[in-house]
Amino acid sequence: MEGRQRVVVENVQPGVDRGRFAVKRVVGDWVTVQADVFADGHDVLAALVQYRLDADETWNEVAMSAGPNDCWTGMFLVDRVGRFRFRVLAWIDRFGTWQRDMGKRIDARQDIRVDLEIGAELIEKAAARSSGQDGDLLREAVQKYRGADASEYAREIVRDDGLASLMAKWDGRHFAVASEELSIVVDRFRARFGAWYELFPRSCSDQTGAHGTLGDCANRLAYVASMGFDVVYLPPIHPIGVSYRKGKNNAVNADDGSPGSPWAIGSRVGDHCSIHPELGTIEDFRALLERARGLGLEVAMDLAFQCSPDHPWVHEHPEWFLHRPDGSIQYAENPPKKYQDIYPIDFETERWSELWHELKGVVDYWVETGIRFFRVDNPHTKAFSFWEWLITVTKERYPDVLFLAEAFTRPKVMYRLAKLGFSQSYNYFPWRNRKAELVDYFRELTQTDVREYFRANLWPNTPDILTEYLQYGGRPAFQVRLVLAATLGATYGIYGPAFELGEHQAAEPGREEYLNSEKYEIRNWNLDDPWSLRDFITRVNRVRRENPALQQDGTLRFHQVDNENLIAYSKTSDDKSNAVVVVVNLDPHHRQSGWLDLDLAELGVPAEANYQMHDQLSDARFLWRGPRNFVELDPGVVPAQIFRVRRHERTEREFEYYL
Amino acid sequence: MEGRQRVVVENVQPGVDRGRFAVKRVVGDWVTVQADVFADGHDVLAALVQYRLDADETWNEVAMSAGPNDCWTGMFLVDRVGRFRFRVLAWIDRFGTWQRDMGKRIDARQDIRVDLEIGAELIEKAAARSSGQDGDLLREAVQKYRGADASEYAREIVRDDGLASLMAKWDGRHFAVASEELSIVVDRFRARFGAWYELFPRSCSDQTGAHGTLGDCANRLAYVASMGFDVVYLPPIHPIGVSYRKGKNNAVNADDGSPGSPWAIGSRVGDHCSIHPELGTIEDFRALLERARGLGLEVAMDLAFQCSPDHPWVHEHPEWFLHRPDGSIQYAENPPKKYQDIYPIDFETERWSELWHELKGVVDYWVETGIRFFRVDNPHTKAFSFWEWLITVTKERYPDVLFLAEAFTRPKVMYRLAKLGFSQSYNYFPWRNRKAELVDYFRELTQTDVREYFRANLWPNTPDILTEYLQYGGRPAFQVRLVLAATLGATYGIYGPAFELGEHQAAEPGREEYLNSEKYEIRNWNLDDPWSLRDFITRVNRVRRENPALQQDGTLRFHQVDNENLIAYSKTSDDKSNAVVVVVNLDPHHRQSGWLDLDLAELGVPAEANYQMHDQLSDARFLWRGPRNFVELDPGVVPAQIFRVRRHERTEREFEYYL
Repeated sequence: MEGRQRVVVENVQPGVDRGRFAVKRVVGDWVTVQADVFADGHDVLAALVQYRLDADETWNEVAMSAGPNDCWTGMFLVDRVGRFRFRVLAWIDRFGTWQRDMGKRIDARQDIRVDLEIGAELIEKAAARSSGQDGDLLREAVQKYRGADASEYAREIVRDDGLASLMAKWDGRHFAVASEELSIVVDRFRARFGAWYELFPRSCSDQTGAHGTLGDCANRLAYVASMGFDVVYLPPIHPIGVSYRKGKNNAVNADDGSPGSPWAIGSRVGDHCSIHPELGTIEDFRALLERARGLGLEVAMDLAFQCSPDHPWVHEHPEWFLHRPDGSIQYAENPPKKYQDIYPIDFETERWSELWHELKGVVDYWVETGIRFFRVDNPHTKAFSFWEWLITVTKERYPDVLFLAEAFTRPKVMYRLAKLGFSQSYNYFPWRNRKAELVDYFRELTQTDVREYFRANLWPNTPDILTEYLQYGGRPAFQVRLVLAATLGATYGIYGPAFELGEHQAAEPGREEYLNSEKYEIRNWNLDDPWSLRDFITRVNRVRRENPALQQDGTLRFHQVDNENLIAYSKTSDDKSNAVVVVVNLDPHHRQSGWLDLDLAELGVPAEANYQMHDQLSDARFLWRGPRNFVELDPGVVPAQIFRVRRHERTEREFEYYL
Repeated sequence: MEGRQRVVVENVQPGVDRGRFAVKRVVGDWVTVQADVFADGHDVLAALVQYRLDADETWNEVAMSAGPNDCWTGMFLVDRVGRFRFRVLAWIDRFGTWQRDMGKRIDARQDIRVDLEIGAELIEKAAARSSGQDGDLLREAVQKYRGADASEYAREIVRDDGLASLMAKWDGRHFAVASEELSIVVDRFRARFGAWYELFPRSCSDQTGAHGTLGDCANRLAYVASMGFDVVYLPPIHPIGVSYRKGKNNAVNADDGSPGSPWAIGSRVGDHCSIHPELGTIEDFRALLERARGLGLEVAMDLAFQCSPDHPWVHEHPEWFLHRPDGSIQYAENPPKKYQDIYPIDFETERWSELWHELKGVVDYWVETGIRFFRVDNPHTKAFSFWEWLITVTKERYPDVLFLAEAFTRPKVMYRLAKLGFSQSYNYFPWRNRKAELVDYFRELTQTDVREYFRANLWPNTPDILTEYLQYGGRPAFQVRLVLAATLGATYGIYGPAFELGEHQAAEPGREEYLNSEKYEIRNWNLDDPWSLRDFITRVNRVRRENPALQQDGTLRFHQVDNENLIAYSKTSDDKSNAVVVVVNLDPHHRQSGWLDLDLAELGVPAEANYQMHDQLSDARFLWRGPRNFVELDPGVVPAQIFRVRRHERTEREFEYYL
């Protein structure tokens, strides 16, 4: 123990659970590090941030500066993908203390002879430690100091920042204190911003009733790309089990010759590293990836770690499954419901380590094939420690690989998965339809600690989720949910073509399953249906690409509207040069109007200036002044406005001045 | 690594900085432990709190129960002083899971033959692990189970809590996960509740101008006790230095034969373990302690780790002080201010370890003499790690010893000292005079994490602090600040007789120092001055002793009054049987009135019931009904009311029903 370490460094931010987990950033972000730094007494302190890529051996350093209430701040750029580490280092700045006190002594015309000598000794010691040009400069300072008029020179150097920096560099950092080390996972930009489109390859055939192939799916990609999507996500493409295969609308037996659920993975012809024969071959899949790349689309693959009773692992590794006293393997259950077509993997197997490596092998295989984004099916039914390990080791080798957690479960569990390393997460957005619900939930996601580790990917619908709002709200409901998803979330997705074609029939009243769900049968979609929201979606995605404000969630702020059916919020780019205000009528049935009360400071608009609100959906432009303005939205026309805030040129200058 | 540990335990409370520091409690407290406990999947979990005195080797255990949002709770009693440790242990409850699922299977009339066998095996395994009577019971269960009608027996035991507890005890706790260990420092009750009285022994003589002795001071104790105080705190009683001794009103030289500041400790005749000769001897001090004990008073001693230039350590251990280049020892400074009569100790001395042990020797000496409460002077100008060590090792040996931190400095530093172990802390109360300031500050102290480690000791005045409010507010100002201190704080103190006699003359306009401060001269006080607040103070202290609600700070809640000059708040005892509402007119000059809006639920009063407000100061009683009531306070009469809320007998029963 070193009892002379007098500085305290605490409350280092950003961190998740005091550094137990990494915070998430993307390449090009500036990381703002904050810490409470203080010591006993009244000495001046020095503090800096040390940071490095996990794999590097030496720290980079950037100085911190003190703000109010002993809170210090420093910033550094994360310029590549990978895991970074950082910590805060602080110590007593003896020269800084001397400078400050000397200034006061001089001002008070005190006898400074002894204090002059103290300063000289500090510089001499630093000079002795220093090297290179710094050494020359410090020795020069000593010489001047030791010259004729030390007291005159002291008057100069009490305010010499150049000398102060030199001294800070070579002051020996006596009894420096380091904080705990914290981690940052830096991902590529797609981890933060992207529009997703989920589709079933087997429903991509032009021929009614025919089983679509990966080739058909590849042909569909141009359609997806034309709407402005960035990521196309495919449900599992692996061989589907035969035993206990489910029929249409989840019928217990597929005696109708149904194709089965793609999530019942594995059969005699292959496992998680195989392609379902009716879809094609691995070469077809490579070709599909190639086609996607050419269209600027990324393909996300489903990762569903469970087996059909016919999966090769069931025979090759029976020890990976739970056996019942009668010798049978335990199928999936949520009593009294039974899912005999699915065998869950037993993460309490004694051979857990072998199991983990086999599962990692699946990921490695597809990464080597070209996949960089995995949508993970039900991660909350597999062991947490497995995910932490899998994601960590995968990203060590392939730092650009991303994982989306499909866990619709309790909040603590969902947050834990995000902390463990999932790059993005499904979330409660589908069930947040009223204003208060949306405001509360998105404040939680974007304005609390949650923002440091949980990146929401917003889906109005999925093959499992057809909300009541969509079932009964008609076309405006689809538009409302699309605009909310695409503007509340930098990342969002739709399950199509069900979404753009307004599919809204539930399997049963009160349920959220689709009638004639693609999970259990092949569907043929009429993409040219005049009802289609294709053009609307295309426009919304273009607005997202044109407005950097919509490409992150950190600046989301809600604004007051005096009507519970109207919600208003804004996002601004980090430099505030781009500001977007979204107003949505949450009532899909009636025209709603009200007074909007904008927080103009948030938008970078001076209180006394005119500004133009340019609706990116209708192209209409409105000249506003001041915070309060009337808004009216008719779901029969368009239930939303996405305004780009255009500040007048003169206003812009005023604003710069204002800043 | 054990990859099969599937349970997560996080966010364990109460803790300070995730267990880096101990939370504070007093003997007899129930500690409510909370933790987020969850696992993947849908299994039933088991969780318990393990706790022990730090010195003990085995854990005690108490079960936790699950509440909403995966938050589990368990409680245990801390029944003695000392440092306790606790942690949360959780695991998958296989039998609980089986019970729950079996119930559902039975309800759904499913085939349960295999599941019956699973349950039987679980009980058999537990029986094999168990011993004593538990073993007998479990073996009996197995026999019944293996008997004729297993399925009938299963129907019984799915809801058999007795068997469930037995199984929980012997289920093997497979892959149990333990949280980090957290600490609790349990103090005696005086750490939470007490009224303090500071007095200068040398001012206790009956003879004008004479230097009072410890004997005179002992004679004064009956007066202090008669007002209902619990602790009498004495400024340093050690030999006072001669070099650079300060004169009256802090004059640079004591050429007037002044007695010097008691905080300039040490002279040729002794050090921190000596008694100032003019005060008396160590025997006199022991006699004073004895007298105090007889009166139910505890004596708190000042611990001021600094030296006059004449202190023996200066010569015996020059290495404990900072030397300047001219060979002189660095005196205390806050440039341009100089305090040549004080040498600070250099906590960066190479001999820091020897220094620490010498300082600890001072504490040990006075503890052995009978002191159990130290008021520590300016702890924020000594090394943090020293205090953590000193307090920890002292309390290991003498767990009933308490330390009060006199650190008037920046908030982070004050909070850090409390985290390090100080039992109580001076705070910003003297400068919180307006309603909004009081509400904000006391919410921070009592309704945030701060409450776990920072115990405020509220002083309206000290020898260093005579606030403007007291200087100019007259008698009502003293009453206001007394009532606020004594009711906002379970622990408070006054510096007397200056306080009860209304001393309000500052050394200079705009300063907070007293004119003719006792720090630099001997004062004689006329305790019988008719102005004296003695009776008022006596009454307030009696109210504190009679109302358990006022003996803690955790239940402090503010209530609305529509007048910025009126503040209202309540405290309730833990069982809500005692409820006190305080209303204070913060304006010492004018009568103020307004509508008080009580949070009746907080007070345990049903909305539709009559209740009596019994003012403990005036003895007046008011019958109120409903939350809104008119209040008016005239500073010319009494500027405060301390109501005891008396619920009608029938109302009490209603309330019980209501609970």
